[in-house]
Amino acid sequence: MCRWLAYWGTPVLLDTILYRPEHSLIDQSLHAKMGVETTNGDGFGVGWYSKEATTPALLTDVGPAWNNRNLREVADHVRSSLFFAHIRASTGTAVQQSNCHPFRHGRWMFMHNGAIARFHEVRRELALLVDPRLYPDIQGTTDSEVMFYLALTFGLDEDPPAAVARMAGVVESVGRAHGIAYPLQMTLAVTDGRRVWAFRYSSARASRSLFYSSRVEALRKLHPDVAFLRELSEESRLVVSEPLGDLPGAWNEVPENSYGVVQPGTDELHRFAPAAV
Amino acid sequence: MCRWLAYWGTPVLLDTILYRPEHSLIDQSLHAKMGVETTNGDGFGVGWYSKEATTPALLTDVGPAWNNRNLREVADHVRSSLFFAHIRASTGTAVQQSNCHPFRHGRWMFMHNGAIARFHEVRRELALLVDPRLYPDIQGTTDSEVMFYLALTFGLDEDPPAAVARMAGVVESVGRAHGIAYPLQMTLAVTDGRRVWAFRYSSARASRSLFYSSRVEALRKLHPDVAFLRELSEESRLVVSEPLGDLPGAWNEVPENSYGVVQPGTDELHRFAPAAV
Amino acid sequence: MCRWLAYWGTPVLLDTILYRPEHSLIDQSLHAKMGVETTNGDGFGVGWYSKEATTPALLTDVGPAWNNRNLREVADHVRSSLFFAHIRASTGTAVQQSNCHPFRHGRWMFMHNGAIARFHEVRRELALLVDPRLYPDIQGTTDSEVMFYLALTFGLDEDPPAAVARMAGVVESVGRAHGIAYPLQMTLAVTDGRRVWAFRYSSARASRSLFYSSRVEALRKLHPDVAFLRELSEESRLVVSEPLGDLPGAWNEVPENSYGVVQPGTDELHRFAPAAV
Amino acid sequence: MCRWLAYWGTPVLLDTILYRPEHSLIDQSLHAKMGVETTNGDGFGVGWYSKEATTPALLTDVGPAWNNRNLREVADHVRSSLFFAHIRASTGTAVQQSNCHPFRHGRWMFMHNGAIARFHEVRRELALLVDPRLYPDIQGTTDSEVMFYLALTFGLDEDPPAAVARMAGVVESVGRAHGIAYPLQMTLAVTDGRRVWAFRYSSARASRSLFYSSRVEALRKLHPDVAFLRELSEESRLVVSEPLGDLPGAWNEVPENSYGVVQPGTDELHRFAPAAV
Repeated sequence: MCRWLAYWGTPVLLDTILYRPEHSLIDQSLHAKMGVETTNGDGFGVGWYSKEATTPALLTDVGPAWNNRNLREVADHVRSSLFFAHIRASTGTAVQQSNCHPFRHGRWMFMHNGAIARFHEVRRELALLVDPRLYPDIQGTTDSEVMFYLALTFGLDEDPPAAVARMAGVVESVGRAHGIAYPLQMTLAVTDGRRVWAFRYSSARASRSLFYSSRVEALRKLHPDVAFLRELSEESRLVVSEPLGDLPGAWNEVPENSYGVVQPGTDELHRFAPAAV
Repeated sequence: MCRWLAYWGTPVLLDTILYRPEHSLIDQSLHAKMGVETTNGDGFGVGWYSKEATTPALLTDVGPAWNNRNLREVADHVRSSLFFAHIRASTGTAVQQSNCHPFRHGRWMFMHNGAIARFHEVRRELALLVDPRLYPDIQGTTDSEVMFYLALTFGLDEDPPAAVARMAGVVESVGRAHGIAYPLQMTLAVTDGRRVWAFRYSSARASRSLFYSSRVEALRKLHPDVAFLRELSEESRLVVSEPLGDLPGAWNEVPENSYGVVQPGTDELHRFAPAAV
Repeated sequence: MCRWLAYWGTPVLLDTILYRPEHSLIDQSLHAKMGVETTNGDGFGVGWYSKEATTPALLTDVGPAWNNRNLREVADHVRSSLFFAHIRASTGTAVQQSNCHPFRHGRWMFMHNGAIARFHEVRRELALLVDPRLYPDIQGTTDSEVMFYLALTFGLDEDPPAAVARMAGVVESVGRAHGIAYPLQMTLAVTDGRRVWAFRYSSARASRSLFYSSRVEALRKLHPDVAFLRELSEESRLVVSEPLGDLPGAWNEVPENSYGVVQPGTDELHRFAPAAV
Repeated sequence: MCRWLAYWGTPVLLDTILYRPEHSLIDQSLHAKMGVETTNGDGFGVGWYSKEATTPALLTDVGPAWNNRNLREVADHVRSSLFFAHIRASTGTAVQQSNCHPFRHGRWMFMHNGAIARFHEVRRELALLVDPRLYPDIQGTTDSEVMFYLALTFGLDEDPPAAVARMAGVVESVGRAHGIAYPLQMTLAVTDGRRVWAFRYSSARASRSLFYSSRVEALRKLHPDVAFLRELSEESRLVVSEPLGDLPGAWNEVPENSYGVVQPGTDELHRFAPAAV
């Protein structure tokens, strides 16, 4: 089990979101409250967009986030209007940088909490469905990265919800062919640097938790004393595996089998179902 | 807060003690039950004696013990009749190999759970009390290593209990001179490769937990089904911060302000008090 | 380009072979003399057999061998009669433990210096030729590990030279189908814990260097003053990418396109050619 | 022996200076040309100032610079007008982040190439001369960090050349009292975020190499084809242990026993001598 966070909005120091809130993501690396595993110490990653490049920057490492010096430094000195952060609890695959989320391909970033059931058995078959031109770019050994490459194969660049639906459909289909009752469990986020798509889905309709923040205006009224809210514009939005802080009214659960889009203008929330294969 | 384990007895694969028991030390690195911190993921160390050298071998690393490949390998392939293992939860000092326990000096090993209160304020003064010939060998920045070097300075090689008592006396004295009410909190173990001394002491008489195993014969009667007990000889003994497994009758608390000696023949248990300085 | 060493013979402390000789393998990690790259600082690995298990133990890490504390400790305290050591200079794939040699499968170990030409282009095709039951065990992303899994697929366990010949044949065949003139460059060693097979081959008949040590008896006569030779029995043998020390008469080049077998009794040297596919 | 680089001038992506020039600092980590050691693979550090904070950001790690993913990412995405970069070849002290340069204290950064002779013998005495209020902030075990803390003790904040001269004087004096003929060898740089002071000095008048770049205007005339020069303003300046690239006319040696100041307006070059103690 992992934990992740996606931020979209006013440019802020990463520190504002990663460390300062009560029960921040970094605090969750030591003490998560929800889910099976309470420690997420098997590596971490942060990916952020800046004016300097169209591709996001990645900082990853194999140790825990809570004691990482370089993450602390970057958080104190880097400002971004769109970033992903992920803390990992390995479910068996190696603890190495190439298995740390977020994953990147061109301007795209991807991160995930969940699992392909019995991945060991279906790994080869799923890898073969990745576009042969993309296959050599796979760098690690996680189910998550294979999910990303399948989504890229199925047109992530043109229609993200459709590509993720086809990826999920393929995982369901291959899994069931192997006699796996519930092949997929996922909460995942993808971004192209302008919009963020966040999905919550599981074969068993018992998906891991996913929340999005309420409108900043409403939050400020509820919590006039919370410092980090003052720095955020109206449109700022957080999507998180597990709520930060203890702000009543701040967090809304993403419904089962649905996805949201965070973007300039009105955000969206839609039903999600794997595409038939 | 840290967790540690000292083993003395029948030569065993490290795996037998480190991984196989229920609620093993490696499991405690993720999920300790006692004490304030439940995660001990800021580095680890194992030190073992073998026939190949009079000095013990050390394996240390800065990541968590629970996902370390090299520790897993060594545990599966190295047999020893006397070893220390330590998992670290940093109380502020850097996470680096030179701060990982056990510390070694010649044939001596030392490990510790606890803290010198407000160490930042007394660090320089305590370091100055280390024998100038030993001072250059200090490699890290922990209070624990300074305690070890003070004990070496005060004659660890000749009389371990007396040297540790003088070390504790000096820490108490310097601390109180700085207005610190309770300068010392410690459970520590030292060994010269033949005997193990384990101390439990705190200025506030509220020392961290420390346990020693019951006689193996009695344990086997209580728990005839527990595999790892079958491999141990009568004289084998474990001293641990926190009980392994859920074996009723297996663990005896080391009393407040006392120390034990594990050695060939009859083990000992004595009162401990810092030496007046 | 990498450097490696295989030792078979009298049980010795790893230190005797890894650190003590002049121009030792550890010294070569900083200052190799032969080949294109003079630094081999992208990770290392040591694998050794002991009485404790039929599978070898592995110690690997992603930093340079020359400054690694744990390697130094293990070398000083572990004795073995058969071990492999490898220092890596990455040709592009990630520097991570799962890419460090030696690789292990059951009681087998494998290490390699060389490359599959334009591996990026043929990676997928070669991976598909790995036995689907073995495929999920691939942990890293190197060409070397794929070579190992192809050899396992082709019967390494029954007939090592034949399996390696088929592996080489497949790499040649897939490479040429992609228009690659010289698909393979390799010096590799495999062992099952009793015998060592060492191969030197390249499509272009310009293979990287590989040497085996002369008979110990002859060496001692030539170099009565060299300490580490005194500890070795008659049958001890080293196979190395690059000679250790400056011992005239000590090293014999493995001929182009051939392989040797180090084993109890008489060692062997044979021609090697890829099997037709 | 280490290698370092200080950049002051037009805000540039770190990549422009760290990776793009021929024989860049990152290339020197594998293949330095000058000096005794040609590999600088025992850790690295980059420190940069940005608009986000008065203190510089630090990125350090214990592996080699040449294969570090996070350094590559930061270099591609971070722009700065004043940064230090350092690659380390340890002369014996531990390879750990707290021993990586640059060191930081408040808004100050410090980095060094050289050594205090027989530091092991004088370490304690020099550490005692550090202001007791600063002493607890020492995090590592290098001679370099002690030099930094001595300079801070002697007024770096008010008069950097005078503070460095007193530091050097103390090192000379303590060293000679221990019978050391040539106690100090140093090329070092310090900055407060606005100016850079670079010193070249050695007791033996045989100081390690140090160079500063010629005026950018002149460089562009000499080398109209070199891309990275086009991005730099007139006032930009580099100070380096070893020239980047093969640009004839680009580099001027800092004379023996002297120091330079890079600052807004005219830069300066002065004689340097240790202060009498």
